[in-house]
Amino acid sequence: MSSYPGLTEGVLFTDQYQLTMAQLYFERGLHERPAQFDYFFRRYPDYGRHQAGYAVFAGLDPLLDWMDRIRFTDADLDLLRDQRNEAGIRRFGDEFLDWLGDHGGFDDVIINAIPEGRVVHANVPIAIVEGPLALLQILETALLNHLNYPTLIATKASRIHEAAGGRPALEFGMRRGPSFGANAGGRAALIGGADFTSNVGVSHEMEIDPKGTHAHSMVQVFMALGEGELEAFRAYAAVYPDDCILLVDTIDTLDSGIPNAIEVFRELRASGHEPVGIRLDSGDLAYLSIEAADMLDAAGFTEVAIVLSGNLDELEIWQIRAQILDEFARAGRDPSGLMDRLIYGVGTRLITSQGHEALDGVYKLVALQTNGEWVPAIKVSDTPEKVPIPGKKQIWRLYDGRGRATADVVGLADETLTNGEIVLHHPHREGVSRRIELENITEIEDLLVEVFRSGKRVTAKSTLDEMRQRRVTDLERLDAGVRRLVNPHIYHVSLTERMKQLQMRLIEEARG
Amino acid sequence: MSSYPGLTEGVLFTDQYQLTMAQLYFERGLHERPAQFDYFFRRYPDYGRHQAGYAVFAGLDPLLDWMDRIRFTDADLDLLRDQRNEAGIRRFGDEFLDWLGDHGGFDDVIINAIPEGRVVHANVPIAIVEGPLALLQILETALLNHLNYPTLIATKASRIHEAAGGRPALEFGMRRGPSFGANAGGRAALIGGADFTSNVGVSHEMEIDPKGTHAHSMVQVFMALGEGELEAFRAYAAVYPDDCILLVDTIDTLDSGIPNAIEVFRELRASGHEPVGIRLDSGDLAYLSIEAADMLDAAGFTEVAIVLSGNLDELEIWQIRAQILDEFARAGRDPSGLMDRLIYGVGTRLITSQGHEALDGVYKLVALQTNGEWVPAIKVSDTPEKVPIPGKKQIWRLYDGRGRATADVVGLADETLTNGEIVLHHPHREGVSRRIELENITEIEDLLVEVFRSGKRVTAKSTLDEMRQRRVTDLERLDAGVRRLVNPHIYHVSLTERMKQLQMRLIEEARG
Repeated sequence: MSSYPGLTEGVLFTDQYQLTMAQLYFERGLHERPAQFDYFFRRYPDYGRHQAGYAVFAGLDPLLDWMDRIRFTDADLDLLRDQRNEAGIRRFGDEFLDWLGDHGGFDDVIINAIPEGRVVHANVPIAIVEGPLALLQILETALLNHLNYPTLIATKASRIHEAAGGRPALEFGMRRGPSFGANAGGRAALIGGADFTSNVGVSHEMEIDPKGTHAHSMVQVFMALGEGELEAFRAYAAVYPDDCILLVDTIDTLDSGIPNAIEVFRELRASGHEPVGIRLDSGDLAYLSIEAADMLDAAGFTEVAIVLSGNLDELEIWQIRAQILDEFARAGRDPSGLMDRLIYGVGTRLITSQGHEALDGVYKLVALQTNGEWVPAIKVSDTPEKVPIPGKKQIWRLYDGRGRATADVVGLADETLTNGEIVLHHPHREGVSRRIELENITEIEDLLVEVFRSGKRVTAKSTLDEMRQRRVTDLERLDAGVRRLVNPHIYHVSLTERMKQLQMRLIEEARG
Repeated sequence: MSSYPGLTEGVLFTDQYQLTMAQLYFERGLHERPAQFDYFFRRYPDYGRHQAGYAVFAGLDPLLDWMDRIRFTDADLDLLRDQRNEAGIRRFGDEFLDWLGDHGGFDDVIINAIPEGRVVHANVPIAIVEGPLALLQILETALLNHLNYPTLIATKASRIHEAAGGRPALEFGMRRGPSFGANAGGRAALIGGADFTSNVGVSHEMEIDPKGTHAHSMVQVFMALGEGELEAFRAYAAVYPDDCILLVDTIDTLDSGIPNAIEVFRELRASGHEPVGIRLDSGDLAYLSIEAADMLDAAGFTEVAIVLSGNLDELEIWQIRAQILDEFARAGRDPSGLMDRLIYGVGTRLITSQGHEALDGVYKLVALQTNGEWVPAIKVSDTPEKVPIPGKKQIWRLYDGRGRATADVVGLADETLTNGEIVLHHPHREGVSRRIELENITEIEDLLVEVFRSGKRVTAKSTLDEMRQRRVTDLERLDAGVRRLVNPHIYHVSLTERMKQLQMRLIEEARG
């Protein structure tokens, strides 16, 4: 049996053990047993010299699209039918495969999730998935894959957005991105804080304008033709008189690139068009941007933007801005003119989340129905951080008198937070708790929304603007300390008293 | 204009500036000018505490497949027709778009490349692409994307294979992999040195057996049912009596998991089946594997494999093996029995190339035809390492008297290496050269093969076995020093005398 188009992006986009476990459940009559798995991550990205204090959730809509579309096709089942073990015996039985063919969409799966684009926190379930045990098991790999990487990239993009201090940030990374994963990365970057991307397909899909002007190769072409940088710039300005951003570092930024750009900008202005910008792609970007701004100002181009690129990430952007501020302070000059003309192009370090390459998101069994009753499930571990929050649950975000988010709280499904005082427990550390007077809480927000039922999404697909607005709103309501790029404050994630008791009881029972 | 299926993986899987440059070339009548771009990388991956001394090339066949298939469709052209700049003016003209519709496949493109799976080196062109300037520019992003990430992952997999010392290594990383890029990563891992993958779709596509047994969740299910680990193991053995590998760390590895596994293994043997293995997924893997082996041996299961997993990479594997060797040496015991039953499962750190997230592969214009003559092109840079090797060229690998590869040499297209002595120059450092007597060279191998012409691949698609065999052969012919996991020796990459002279002449001319 050979491959077929789409084989690797269909329902067989999964780990083999999901299928072997599903068959075991089938053999034991457990395959349609209602179960609940929670998706959450345990640790915020730590990039080495800087760390995240929050994450931005992304990847949900593509996951729901995939689930909407995906079924076990005859071709998939034929491939599984042909799998044989070392002894030459077929690995998957016909009855199990027939069941997959009949039931192996996600028709009976329900997902409640925090909406895409929102700020999310460690240990808090972001997606809660309910449905037949065997199908939830098969879904695990695709779910984790669809959510982990985009959330990682959206988080990085949000940090880059914060570092850029209100100036635009562009995503440029597809050439070094992980194969077609670069599309998911580009989309996540747009949700998380990149204003635009160079990725043409993703831009059109997300209905925004793709960004890009020219590369060094264009200047090289004119050089190979016996012409030069000036003629290359003139050619570019002639074709794009209203979008003229010139890359000035092909030969020498200060001695060749900027003087040539200024000459072309003068010609452009004389012909009735205003130039848009220059791009610096190498060298000491803080120093060069100051020099470039002075040269452009002296030539009368005070509005021309300066796009910076070349191995940027949030820390580099932050340091470039700090260097410029220092330099201007020393000279007694006002830096705002320069700061307000900078634009940041970010490539490899965003699309690969450099320094923290993978979100540690997991999908854990937390409840199983037995005789019509939900039984909470737990996995004990020698590492307390690895013990999940068991059972059916609710998730609230509490806002204080300043309107700031003060804690995410996980409670039992039948709880309400209406008493005068609530005790909140650390999710893993025993004995660590705090009390909150509910009169000091101005809002209790239920974070989960039903997004998938009966094989279909039940909420409209979010637009990019909606997802971005969720992030902006959540960030405004987050403490500045938690948003810090380096050594952020720890956001409170807590269990209610009753949830903590359930967790501890189950741990004791499991340990016997 | 809204999106359409496949939008983001078709010809618009590119950076916007490739299209704006292509239109500029069109406007200047340069779009069909024959050009050559070279693909190469500049630095081997450096993972921080360990470094690569070579790379394994992967991603070529998927790139050729994509090029075979991809055209500017009417839907693509409609999207581009609707792009407008800030002034509301259409960005791409009808004549240019008509030309793309008529010529925008890759029919006139020729690619010569080093075959997939081979060992490749820094600064040596791995793929040489010739064709109409505008199309080569549009191809840049997809080419870099298709080759950079897989080569990075194949390189990491090769190192993991080396660290595993002949024992099997399995790729498990898709859940933390970069969206559907995990498929390209899984394929590259198989080429580079992973024996198997858990990725079902990729395994079937590559026609090998997917690997996987069960996760902690299966044990948790039985616990939630009021049964336990032993019953979970029994259930697994009942369904998979000939493939029984049991994950033993859900509760407690030494006190629960292994004793329960041994009990089930005894039952299995009594029913006429031999157990296959156990898997350890947490804790001190060196210590636990020694204890596990002793317990299994004492119970008469000396052949049962021990699969290790949990944040492994080449350095972890190497250290686990070293710890076991030390421990056995102290006890005066023979470690070979244990070493020969170990299997390594590698997840996140392989699929993300942890520590070095992106190969710095580039695609540079090196020649352009003018009046029917090829004119070499160069990009000068303040960083000598960034100056490419210009012009039309040949690439040879030289083998010494021991049959070992001693240098990759880049020469002019019309050169032959037939004189008695050749002078080889460092690609970037001026004045650094060495002399080689050709009588000491036992083989001069031409590394490039024509793989694409007239819009189609011209060589048969490589099988996985062929690609792996190329890697194995090349590694055998590589010095042990270059293969080292830490501080590898530097492999010689050199220019011929004439190529060096061309490079220096062009740099001087460009600097004026």
